[in-house]
Amino acid sequence: MKKIINPDKKQWLSLCERPAEDIEDLSKSVQQIFQEIKQNGDEAVAKYTEIFDEVRLDNTEVSEGEIAKAVNEVAEELKEAIALAKQNIEKFHASQKLTKEVIETSQGVLCWQETRPIEKIGIYIPGGTAPLFSTVLMLAVPAKIAGCKEIVLCTPPNKEGKINPAILYTANLIGIDKIYKIGGIQAIGAMTIGTEIVPKVYKIFGPGNQYVTAAKQQAMLEGIAIDMPAGPSELLVLADDTANPVFVASDLLSQAEHGADSQVICIVNDEKLMYQVEREVEKQIRVLPRKGVAEKSIKNSKLILIEDKQDTIDFINEYAPEHFILAVKEEGFYLENLVNAGSVFIGNYTPESAGDYASGTNHTLPTNGYARSYSGVNLDTFSKKITFQKINEEGIKNIGAAIEVMAAAEGLQAHKNAVTLRLENLGKE
Amino acid sequence: MKKIINPDKKQWLSLCERPAEDIEDLSKSVQQIFQEIKQNGDEAVAKYTEIFDEVRLDNTEVSEGEIAKAVNEVAEELKEAIALAKQNIEKFHASQKLTKEVIETSQGVLCWQETRPIEKIGIYIPGGTAPLFSTVLMLAVPAKIAGCKEIVLCTPPNKEGKINPAILYTANLIGIDKIYKIGGIQAIGAMTIGTEIVPKVYKIFGPGNQYVTAAKQQAMLEGIAIDMPAGPSELLVLADDTANPVFVASDLLSQAEHGADSQVICIVNDEKLMYQVEREVEKQIRVLPRKGVAEKSIKNSKLILIEDKQDTIDFINEYAPEHFILAVKEEGFYLENLVNAGSVFIGNYTPESAGDYASGTNHTLPTNGYARSYSGVNLDTFSKKITFQKINEEGIKNIGAAIEVMAAAEGLQAHKNAVTLRLENLGKE
Repeated sequence: MKKIINPDKKQWLSLCERPAEDIEDLSKSVQQIFQEIKQNGDEAVAKYTEIFDEVRLDNTEVSEGEIAKAVNEVAEELKEAIALAKQNIEKFHASQKLTKEVIETSQGVLCWQETRPIEKIGIYIPGGTAPLFSTVLMLAVPAKIAGCKEIVLCTPPNKEGKINPAILYTANLIGIDKIYKIGGIQAIGAMTIGTEIVPKVYKIFGPGNQYVTAAKQQAMLEGIAIDMPAGPSELLVLADDTANPVFVASDLLSQAEHGADSQVICIVNDEKLMYQVEREVEKQIRVLPRKGVAEKSIKNSKLILIEDKQDTIDFINEYAPEHFILAVKEEGFYLENLVNAGSVFIGNYTPESAGDYASGTNHTLPTNGYARSYSGVNLDTFSKKITFQKINEEGIKNIGAAIEVMAAAEGLQAHKNAVTLRLENLGKE
Repeated sequence: MKKIINPDKKQWLSLCERPAEDIEDLSKSVQQIFQEIKQNGDEAVAKYTEIFDEVRLDNTEVSEGEIAKAVNEVAEELKEAIALAKQNIEKFHASQKLTKEVIETSQGVLCWQETRPIEKIGIYIPGGTAPLFSTVLMLAVPAKIAGCKEIVLCTPPNKEGKINPAILYTANLIGIDKIYKIGGIQAIGAMTIGTEIVPKVYKIFGPGNQYVTAAKQQAMLEGIAIDMPAGPSELLVLADDTANPVFVASDLLSQAEHGADSQVICIVNDEKLMYQVEREVEKQIRVLPRKGVAEKSIKNSKLILIEDKQDTIDFINEYAPEHFILAVKEEGFYLENLVNAGSVFIGNYTPESAGDYASGTNHTLPTNGYARSYSGVNLDTFSKKITFQKINEEGIKNIGAAIEVMAAAEGLQAHKNAVTLRLENLGKE
């Protein structure tokens, strides 16, 4: 780990920088694949599945038989764990429902907001070595609570044309009945455009590699909303002498094992702790199955000593971490002054992996500094708010003149007329 | 107006289509201007202001003197109208504050959301014939309530290098102290990149023409959030025999005067009303100052007769109108079944122009069918939600095993370790 002691504020910007991703411009390939899906529908999808996933599939839709088989294959212990996680995610996201509140802004002028689900949504779950059934929970559970009517899930097949049973089990448990064995650009394209087999959706959710990210950007240009921009995962731990260096190291490593590009930062206020954490990381990393990945990530990670409290929180806000573990005595000061973060884990017994799986909060969070302007996925991400207003005779008398004056000042006479004609009509009564 | 009677459902898709905008691909020009701003800062901004706005400005920042002059120039009557509108917008948006609610998802596992402002935001106000001071209210008032610390406003100067006094007056009234005489692509570029004069922001708000829209797309690719995708304004009116054809016509025309590309749809359940509305539109349009614009828009507008109630609401949801006026007896049925709309205006005395200026709701709303997946601007648009979790010893004992099982099933051993080490430590005690 790189050790930095009381960095000068001039250094902060470079310390907060994420590694420049060497992103290929994939827009041409994405546009080509989208164009072919527009022309040839499912045949184009099958073509690219054959190219990228090396399997020819005649039907991309997962059958009831396949689901029944998956349900059998998942161990009982995992089923129970998923059930607990699901319950906690449900409780927390259900609590986020908006309560309708009618506001009388002027007498006779009632205004309120109501929430409605986004009717058709698409969820993308990446393939690869880790079967991300936890992400199925994090996206499909709030979608169901929001009331989304049509939930489509795409995930790439392996070379045998199969999907990991834990993904199928979880999707089925939540009640997703449209699961397709499609991955990458062609999956995002199919959900953006719609084919005979795959329904077109209004918003697409889920993580993915640079191909998926580029395809989601294209989807946006074609009028489909997306959850948020993507980037490598990150963790910032703030620890003092009340923290346990063993726990801190384990948290840093849980982030580091995600990928070589994972961002890991640990801020301490004490040099002794700095070395304790470093030693613990070196010790724990040895036995990890994903040691190779974690080592690369840890090599780029930073152990920073900052003594001043205000400087510390200023730095954290400047960095805007996706995950922020707060293991210090004076947590109140940091909670009060925190502005930019995705999700916060407070105290020695709140590891980041709790939020990844089972505390109830969502694990789809803004990376790459996007916490400055984006929320993580929450119930709102699956719905939209409609405003309503109901004005009675008294109300239009109260605010009509103001509207007339403002509309006239903006040169919009017909806007003014819509009020004038109503006021005249009331005058006649 | 085009009259359509009981259209077949096969026709709906084409009736719901917005006119295909013939959008030039402006990305090359936008990238060029952004690149020059990165290299030459304010000098590049000045160069493009000279090219597009035909005025050379040495300093783009609006001075206190200019604001004092504007305050003098705005008529007292307009000031009072703006004060009333401001008060209603404040009341409604202040009511949207999130109340923190701590949820115990499992015993010892506390989860909650808190809202934090987006610290730095940019507001773009277009120039042209209509000085949109109402949009200053709609964007800056909620930004202040959300607690945004730095609010930057850009608006193009006229050929004399001046800005409409009503815009300056309103911005100053709300407390925006960073106002710049910069328009179009170079304004969005300056706020995206930051120059010596113009601060870099995290999110950009506001309407604009196709140049501004293309620049906001580029801003997104460079990591800056935007309010929502843009498109021509639209209104759908649903009226029955309890509606007043004079009012309905005035509302249709208030939409039509926005621009030749404005979308106007009126649905009735009765042929007689159809002709009454048409006659009233023809009568009222004659005296409008913006008659030319309104006539073009009305020519493309649609008067649709649908008799069946369920078909009617299905059609409205399919269309997903930005503005929806509901002037019918059985309003309850439509309110209950409405899924897709930006803002709804209920009853005979609730003209759309009330929401444009002074009812209190926001007038920055999703157009072009985006109401299927986007909310209009509201307090949330200026802030983000952070999730928090605090787990105690009992809590980690309750959910720890589930996390271990799930992490192992996803092949993430270090995630599991972070829990195992904590549980072991508790076992020791």
